[in-house]
Amino acid sequence: MSSPAEQPSTPWSKAWGLRVPVVNAPMGGVAGGRLAAAVTAAGGLGLIGMGSAGSVAALRRELPFTASLGGRFGIGLVGWVLDAEPELLDVAIEAGPALITVGFADDSGWVDRVASAGIRTAAQVYNADDARRAEDAGIDVVVARGLEGGGHGAPDMTTLPLLDAVLKDVLVPVLAAGGIGSPASLAAVLAAGASGAWLGTRLAACSESLLHDAGRRAMIAADGSDTVLTSVFDIAMELPWPTRFPARVLRNEFTDRWAGDEDTLRTDGEARISVRAAAESVDPRIAPIDAGQGVGMITSVESARDVVTEMCSGAAELLTGPSPT
Amino acid sequence: MSSPAEQPSTPWSKAWGLRVPVVNAPMGGVAGGRLAAAVTAAGGLGLIGMGSAGSVAALRRELPFTASLGGRFGIGLVGWVLDAEPELLDVAIEAGPALITVGFADDSGWVDRVASAGIRTAAQVYNADDARRAEDAGIDVVVARGLEGGGHGAPDMTTLPLLDAVLKDVLVPVLAAGGIGSPASLAAVLAAGASGAWLGTRLAACSESLLHDAGRRAMIAADGSDTVLTSVFDIAMELPWPTRFPARVLRNEFTDRWAGDEDTLRTDGEARISVRAAAESVDPRIAPIDAGQGVGMITSVESARDVVTEMCSGAAELLTGPSPT
Ligand SMILES: Cc1cc2nc3c(=O)[nH]c(=O)nc-3n(C[C@H](O)[C@H](O)[C@H](O)COP(=O)(O)O)c2cc1C
Ligand SMILES: Cc1cc2nc3c(=O)[nH]c(=O)nc-3n(C[C@H](O)[C@H](O)[C@H](O)COP(=O)(O)O)c2cc1C
Repeated sequence: MSSPAEQPSTPWSKAWGLRVPVVNAPMGGVAGGRLAAAVTAAGGLGLIGMGSAGSVAALRRELPFTASLGGRFGIGLVGWVLDAEPELLDVAIEAGPALITVGFADDSGWVDRVASAGIRTAAQVYNADDARRAEDAGIDVVVARGLEGGGHGAPDMTTLPLLDAVLKDVLVPVLAAGGIGSPASLAAVLAAGASGAWLGTRLAACSESLLHDAGRRAMIAADGSDTVLTSVFDIAMELPWPTRFPARVLRNEFTDRWAGDEDTLRTDGEARISVRAAAESVDPRIAPIDAGQGVGMITSVESARDVVTEMCSGAAELLTGPSPT
Repeated sequence: MSSPAEQPSTPWSKAWGLRVPVVNAPMGGVAGGRLAAAVTAAGGLGLIGMGSAGSVAALRRELPFTASLGGRFGIGLVGWVLDAEPELLDVAIEAGPALITVGFADDSGWVDRVASAGIRTAAQVYNADDARRAEDAGIDVVVARGLEGGGHGAPDMTTLPLLDAVLKDVLVPVLAAGGIGSPASLAAVLAAGASGAWLGTRLAACSESLLHDAGRRAMIAADGSDTVLTSVFDIAMELPWPTRFPARVLRNEFTDRWAGDEDTLRTDGEARISVRAAAESVDPRIAPIDAGQGVGMITSVESARDVVTEMCSGAAELLTGPSPT
């Protein structure tokens, strides 16, 4: 249909039947069924993300949007949430997606269960050791996720040297994640040998996401220097995130006050109440808004379909030169 | 001479008369005249680096190695060292290099002096604001330097989103720096639109560098997760580095002990003596060894000429497909 100069592809994207080598990151509270469906419609693989507030009920609310995709979507879950509500994995498997990923899990017990249901698996990794372990556990595709990425993750390597290290060490396909927010950075990771890109931040502010409008506005106003890697919101909201996984969020009044003063925060009831109130009233001066260093590439609210298409055609042009007319 | 598939080039590298779009970073105590000459011989632009221990005497020791290059080399100085020994800039200008860069400078007063001597200028930048200021000051080429890079730098953005942000905001050519240690990561930044790469770590362990053998061995043994960004060595060695510029170094016993405990270190005379002794006896368990997250790509001591040639031909292959035979 379209010439190679218009849409990039990789052996992996072809093998998986995708028109473009793009997966949207499973973003809790942000990547619902509408975003997943839009990314799949653009030729990539759309994922529904269940984050720290994920539940069977929340997943059931999002699944109908993907009903017409014939299984061409994925589901991302959080390991410690599954510990509390194991049926979430059952419901995800029953939904018959093409891919399931479980992040921040203590072990890889989920991999065999998902694989034996005939569903492919992905895992985010933060260094070469992680990647080898994921490969040994039978993961189908490894996501090399750099510390510039939005949301929770281990603060270890950054995307480019991480991608280098992981490509050197594993044989399974490798997707790149973290800070990829433009045609140029998409072209970069594809040129380096990534099988595709796993995009979070750049798609979070799209019209199909579940993000509140105040969050969209804050993302549009921010540039790439306006994020911090911190656990202050997890502490304030008493979420049981393992501390080895801080989150990259937009810097705001709350992070300015509390980052570096975590011990006081743990005992400060008022600060904790203020975050919960702000999260409910979506006041971005106090509330957590997950975002990576690619946030500066967001300049307006666009549809995910347009963003994926523009990023891919721009990347193809950078990789092959402008298409002849 | 060589086909495009064998050596990448960019409009910038052609305009500057380089066969390959590679500059070696000015690494104090590591990038002497021999390394600079080897990088220029490989078709790039070799730089002599004067670091915190830079001096007129040290520069005069290194300059003879570049005597036969007809000015095809550069010199990198450190701003606060210049404050103490301003003649260092005079000697650098008199040497007639193609490029002078001054890092960690409080102002851009040096730019006009260098430019009026007919010498080109480069500046490392850490975010888009820096880049715009450098462009306004008349810098000829901006170096977008991500926080994964080795040595001193501002801990702000990482290479890929930084490159995105800087390319969007300035018109001068942009080199990418930080974590570029393989054909794949070189291809990545060129695909993204960088005019070239500014390579530190990957060249630091080369046979032509001034690094001691214990340092080479430590770099070979390390992987990309084995670095930390810290000021502990600067504190211990009482170097007047501005604290907004910590250094990325190999993690070792000293960083494990003192990172996070800087206030105690400031008053601990014995720790300070041990670092000085270790630095002299080059004991890598205690001594500082600057290295970025690309250090995992170093697996043996090679010549800089071979490294540059292999990185460039590998990158060209990734960007254009294997050359037809
Ligand atoms: C708003 C937002 C929410 C996220 N929520 C989750 C999540 O629930 N589970 C998960 O595995 N990763 C989550 N992530 C991280 C992504 O999986 C991915 O690592 C990251 O978005 C990639 O970097 P980028 O944001 O720079 O594209 C989230 C990221 C963002 C931006
Ligand atoms: C051993 C070493 C010494 C360095 N010394 C200096 C220096 O004296 N002046 C300077 O401007 N930058 C110095 N740097 C930083 C480099 O200019 C550059 O930012 C960095 O090496 C790029 O990242 P990379 O090391 O990942 O290639 C040094 C880097 C290394 C690895």
